[in-house]
Amino acid sequence: MATQRILDFLATRRPEGPCLVVDLDVVRENYRAFERALPDSRIFYAVKANPAPEILKLLADLGSSFDTASVPEIEMALDAGATPDRISFGNTIKKERDIARAFDLGIRLFAVDCKEEVEKIARAAPGSRVFCRVLTDGAGAEWPLSRKFGCVPEMAVDVLRHAAALGLDAYGVSFHVGSQQTDLSAWDRALGDARFVFEALAEQGIVLRMVNMGGGFPTRYLRDVPAAQAYGQAIFTALSKHFGNRLPETIIEPGRGMVGNAGVIKSEVVLISRKSEDDAVRWVYLDIGKFGGLAETMDEAIRYPLVTRHDGEETAPCVVAGPTCDSADVLYEKTPYPLPLSLTVGDEVLIEGTGAYTTTYASVAFNGFAPLRSYVI
Amino acid sequence: MATQRILDFLATRRPEGPCLVVDLDVVRENYRAFERALPDSRIFYAVKANPAPEILKLLADLGSSFDTASVPEIEMALDAGATPDRISFGNTIKKERDIARAFDLGIRLFAVDCKEEVEKIARAAPGSRVFCRVLTDGAGAEWPLSRKFGCVPEMAVDVLRHAAALGLDAYGVSFHVGSQQTDLSAWDRALGDARFVFEALAEQGIVLRMVNMGGGFPTRYLRDVPAAQAYGQAIFTALSKHFGNRLPETIIEPGRGMVGNAGVIKSEVVLISRKSEDDAVRWVYLDIGKFGGLAETMDEAIRYPLVTRHDGEETAPCVVAGPTCDSADVLYEKTPYPLPLSLTVGDEVLIEGTGAYTTTYASVAFNGFAPLRSYVI
Repeated sequence: MATQRILDFLATRRPEGPCLVVDLDVVRENYRAFERALPDSRIFYAVKANPAPEILKLLADLGSSFDTASVPEIEMALDAGATPDRISFGNTIKKERDIARAFDLGIRLFAVDCKEEVEKIARAAPGSRVFCRVLTDGAGAEWPLSRKFGCVPEMAVDVLRHAAALGLDAYGVSFHVGSQQTDLSAWDRALGDARFVFEALAEQGIVLRMVNMGGGFPTRYLRDVPAAQAYGQAIFTALSKHFGNRLPETIIEPGRGMVGNAGVIKSEVVLISRKSEDDAVRWVYLDIGKFGGLAETMDEAIRYPLVTRHDGEETAPCVVAGPTCDSADVLYEKTPYPLPLSLTVGDEVLIEGTGAYTTTYASVAFNGFAPLRSYVI
Repeated sequence: MATQRILDFLATRRPEGPCLVVDLDVVRENYRAFERALPDSRIFYAVKANPAPEILKLLADLGSSFDTASVPEIEMALDAGATPDRISFGNTIKKERDIARAFDLGIRLFAVDCKEEVEKIARAAPGSRVFCRVLTDGAGAEWPLSRKFGCVPEMAVDVLRHAAALGLDAYGVSFHVGSQQTDLSAWDRALGDARFVFEALAEQGIVLRMVNMGGGFPTRYLRDVPAAQAYGQAIFTALSKHFGNRLPETIIEPGRGMVGNAGVIKSEVVLISRKSEDDAVRWVYLDIGKFGGLAETMDEAIRYPLVTRHDGEETAPCVVAGPTCDSADVLYEKTPYPLPLSLTVGDEVLIEGTGAYTTTYASVAFNGFAPLRSYVI
């Protein structure tokens, strides 16, 4: 996943310290793959995945819309050239004064998952469109979602009816099947729930028009065109099954799927040691860890590919850890990582698939270390 | 733990958004308590706990030394007025070029836990003092240490002999019993290991002089003077038991114990909701979460006291979560937090005991949210 452009950049510029390099060509390919796989869906890029201005600008130029989590993200999307009608305030947890600021900036599309949030929006953003997030179980996803967002479908009916009663535009339903979702039936189940909400409200004279299918599209499938088509086809089939020939508008919100495989972190081996003479595993310490941008290694959830100049040589299991004095700053230990025996201090290690959820996760200055630098090329 | 000075500051200044307020009077009291409890030990404040310049300046003026994790932390300690002989480069994981920079800045005291690190120091900081960290099991600590730092005592003997052979000053041994350690026997076991290393090297003509007892002193005990004395007494007794009348120099490295109880985070309730009509727990969403500075709630390890204006009224169990669109941004769920039923959106929530390991842990801009602001008064 380290493209030749990224390798050339690193070879030429030789940046000091850990850094992320993102190849815009890959982002463009990913955008096109989403367009091809789901031609009838509007794409709202999840800005939180990587808000680098160059990425937002490229996607705005390609015609993307933007899913934002906060007022600063709305401002970034506007700065990149997106018009307010292409921006959704997709966080279900918003201060009323932030809703008002978004409304002032022209935003008219908001996520909710409870009546309290509907009431804030009715006061601070009157007449806006709202969609209600429905809980899914997240089964089959590599980075499963908790119950943090959404409500059960029965409650979504009440929430959207409340929105309509308060003069808001009850626009639709959203769900998220969990990140890196590989089980195609997850979309079928969630679309069934969406249909339930559509029908229950239609019986009360409220006609929803939109289903926001969230993100969760696994990167590695989308790069493979037949597989991407299979995803698109499975989702289209599920839509047709549940909505017949009255298909709703649909939205997708790719984040990791748009930028994850476009970025590579360059890091360096700081130390290799054992804890005792008879220790079976080596400890390999890199100059980036959990608090420098690799937060998604929490509970060893995301296992990034590590590339070294010794690949292909004999390997042995290693614990991989970060450079801080924090004992929790260990990336892979429960499942040790096989790394070449010839790896030595000072060697470069490329951490692939790190274009999403890295730069913004980096801590401000934990242990005095600077945040992750980023180059978008 | 919210002192009157902190409450007055918040009432007068009414800062917008989440923020940390640290009361320097409490830091001063903590420093004095450490001095009284362990009068024969040098205090090296663990800068990583909170590197606010005002805190470093106060401690430098009080005579503290400083345990640092990186070159930027060394520079901060120097800026605060500490002379290089009062600064230790306590991270066992260091790039050789950072060791060289520290040496240039006058630093002559370094932590190691393997021969490879000794060799870097011999090259980049010739003649310096080194101490070798020994593994402890961390049993009894609320934030237990992994095996990330240190080596077994037998290997520490080899590491320090190697240091002496390369012209370094084999100065001593360090250990860390784990943060918020309440089991006094943890120090006894670790000091027994230290004695083993001292004796094994003495037989080879290498005389160590220092034991670095790390941090781990629990805040709540130290504020209680008899308990603080009990800690000091237990440690002194263990030292005497293992080293007889040839007591080594000792160092302690308090971090959380120095600043944890000096700080309070002011936050705000953004949303309170249920996931279904029959949901037993409410979800309370604050404007600060795991990625805004409360990283130590990972695995619900640290349970901060939450204070609201409704305290004393009837409570019910809540899940407490942060404001980001990340499903992992949940503070307390496995063990729900009892909060007043009368709590409402917009209410202020004080998160106590948050002076340590919060500001620097905050993410740069995850979800577009600004890092945690800090006021030191």
